[in-house]
Amino acid sequence: MRTVEWHDGAVRMIDQKQIPWELTQVDLHDVQAVADAITDMTVRGAPAIGASAAYGMALAARQSAAESVDALMDDLRHAGDILKVARPTAVNLAWAVDRMLAFAAAQSPRDADDLRNRLLDEAQRIADDDVAINQRMGAYGAALISDGMTVLHHCNTGALATVDFGTALGVIRAAHEAGRQFHVLLDETRPRLQGARLSAWELEQLGVSYDILPDTAAGYYMLKGEIKLVLVGADRIAANGDTANKIGTYQIAVLAKEHGIPFYVVAPTSTVDLSLATGAEIPIEDRGKDEVLAPYGHALVPAHFNARNPAFDVTPSRYISGIVTENGIARPPFNDSLARAVAGETL
Amino acid sequence: MRTVEWHDGAVRMIDQKQIPWELTQVDLHDVQAVADAITDMTVRGAPAIGASAAYGMALAARQSAAESVDALMDDLRHAGDILKVARPTAVNLAWAVDRMLAFAAAQSPRDADDLRNRLLDEAQRIADDDVAINQRMGAYGAALISDGMTVLHHCNTGALATVDFGTALGVIRAAHEAGRQFHVLLDETRPRLQGARLSAWELEQLGVSYDILPDTAAGYYMLKGEIKLVLVGADRIAANGDTANKIGTYQIAVLAKEHGIPFYVVAPTSTVDLSLATGAEIPIEDRGKDEVLAPYGHALVPAHFNARNPAFDVTPSRYISGIVTENGIARPPFNDSLARAVAGETL
Repeated sequence: MRTVEWHDGAVRMIDQKQIPWELTQVDLHDVQAVADAITDMTVRGAPAIGASAAYGMALAARQSAAESVDALMDDLRHAGDILKVARPTAVNLAWAVDRMLAFAAAQSPRDADDLRNRLLDEAQRIADDDVAINQRMGAYGAALISDGMTVLHHCNTGALATVDFGTALGVIRAAHEAGRQFHVLLDETRPRLQGARLSAWELEQLGVSYDILPDTAAGYYMLKGEIKLVLVGADRIAANGDTANKIGTYQIAVLAKEHGIPFYVVAPTSTVDLSLATGAEIPIEDRGKDEVLAPYGHALVPAHFNARNPAFDVTPSRYISGIVTENGIARPPFNDSLARAVAGETL
Repeated sequence: MRTVEWHDGAVRMIDQKQIPWELTQVDLHDVQAVADAITDMTVRGAPAIGASAAYGMALAARQSAAESVDALMDDLRHAGDILKVARPTAVNLAWAVDRMLAFAAAQSPRDADDLRNRLLDEAQRIADDDVAINQRMGAYGAALISDGMTVLHHCNTGALATVDFGTALGVIRAAHEAGRQFHVLLDETRPRLQGARLSAWELEQLGVSYDILPDTAAGYYMLKGEIKLVLVGADRIAANGDTANKIGTYQIAVLAKEHGIPFYVVAPTSTVDLSLATGAEIPIEDRGKDEVLAPYGHALVPAHFNARNPAFDVTPSRYISGIVTENGIARPPFNDSLARAVAGETL
């Protein structure tokens, strides 16, 4: 089952808010519903958000009453505007919208319905490519994991964060499928607990040895010498390698450096935003205090208490050992290696 | 209302598991009940555990059927053994038991009942001393906080962690009462959420400006330059200054060093264990996975998922700027300064 797919004229996605308790899907019938599902994190994970946006554009084309190609293009641009504001940090969202718009503009369709069909084909290609890209990253990254190692992982970057297979957790899956024996420590990743709820659920099914850790315990196991490698995903990577990812990533990178532990980001080149020189320009989403005070409806403290909830942080590239892409592992200096990876060069 | 006190022949304590939802007290009528309340964290916080153990010894004396002083001493030693195993890391527990036993051995009581009365007086002295000691630490530490500053705090070290007033949070209270204007960021402190549940509840009542942070966000606010000071408590401090405290303290100390932020421990000299040369010998309690998977009965993930739950970590003294004691602020080299503070010298 894919995280997001096209089904009978609708965008069908796994409702990730229900995992690990049940595996259910929701069908979305208009572009606003797709945008809402991105905002409320029914679907999350930068690559999964990208594919959802691509399908959302195909859905918008289907729902449009436009009879001419020009009118359909107008409706598509409007749909793109709706999708792009759903979440601010992951660049894959804008990347997918812009790719769909550029694709549409480059076509010479017979009529509006022909363009509708071509847009759905393109969304399918984006989704299929995502799976293939993840498998390639898995193959490159698996070499980082050796027998007997303990790997620390933050948030969820698995099949659920992508169309299928995963980025950083895809590397873990590839190493597991290659027969390597190792252990994974999963940061629970407050406030939304993606590590405890989603990554643990995925590793349970894959049969990979793991333990959930409170986010307070990563440094403890580094100082004990147990953790030998850190793997994380990314929501946006600037040209110099500065990496926006789930809140907590930055402090793990600092800890990894202090202990001499390799720290790798795993992300497709669609996550690289060469228009930004550094991470200082990446917008950080504020999701409000309710997720902290009452995650998934569990009121941990009274609702009137004060809390902050920045959803992402930016790890300066000096803390990053390498960035695993579908074109190989980019290494410092990242300005050069990332530009080559984005251009399609095999590193 | 004190965290722990003697009431009508019983040890009365605030049930901290019910805070922030309600402020209730429980009366404990035998030493095993006191030990159980320490183990299940009805009472927690190193100084509060110490006072509870002292009252537990007084209670054991009251409950003992011994008719002779020698028989009562035997019962007291047995009670001390029950209390000492309640939790392993905080040295204040053993410190209070040993102080009560040494006190008893040094008396020349008329009879067993006279010793019983003297032991209750000694427990009261320990409790009263704790409040006075905290106020002295508050006065010394308040000088670290200046107007406009944002202070990061981990776990709970307030009135609830002591008999009254608090250690690190006592410093914050003293600065607030001195009229200083500042903001406090409270790590929520997974898995047991002492920051979100207990420290936020205390600062709400004191009227101190605060926000709860997910434990993942401390580094983010350090990199932004907002945090200017870190204050934490301690459960045991070795002779060289290595400090055992709530899990997560170590990684905050590493982050503070990386950002050039002063990192201070606030603890009474009863928390210093000069019998240990370094922190390597401090036992770390493992509290089992349930607190991680289902805090306070809120099932966040299925009960069969795997998790680890080390309750404390040890911060090497090289990360510590100073240790605020009731005799002044100990500074590196701590072997010298702590020994002098423990000996009662004003630093």
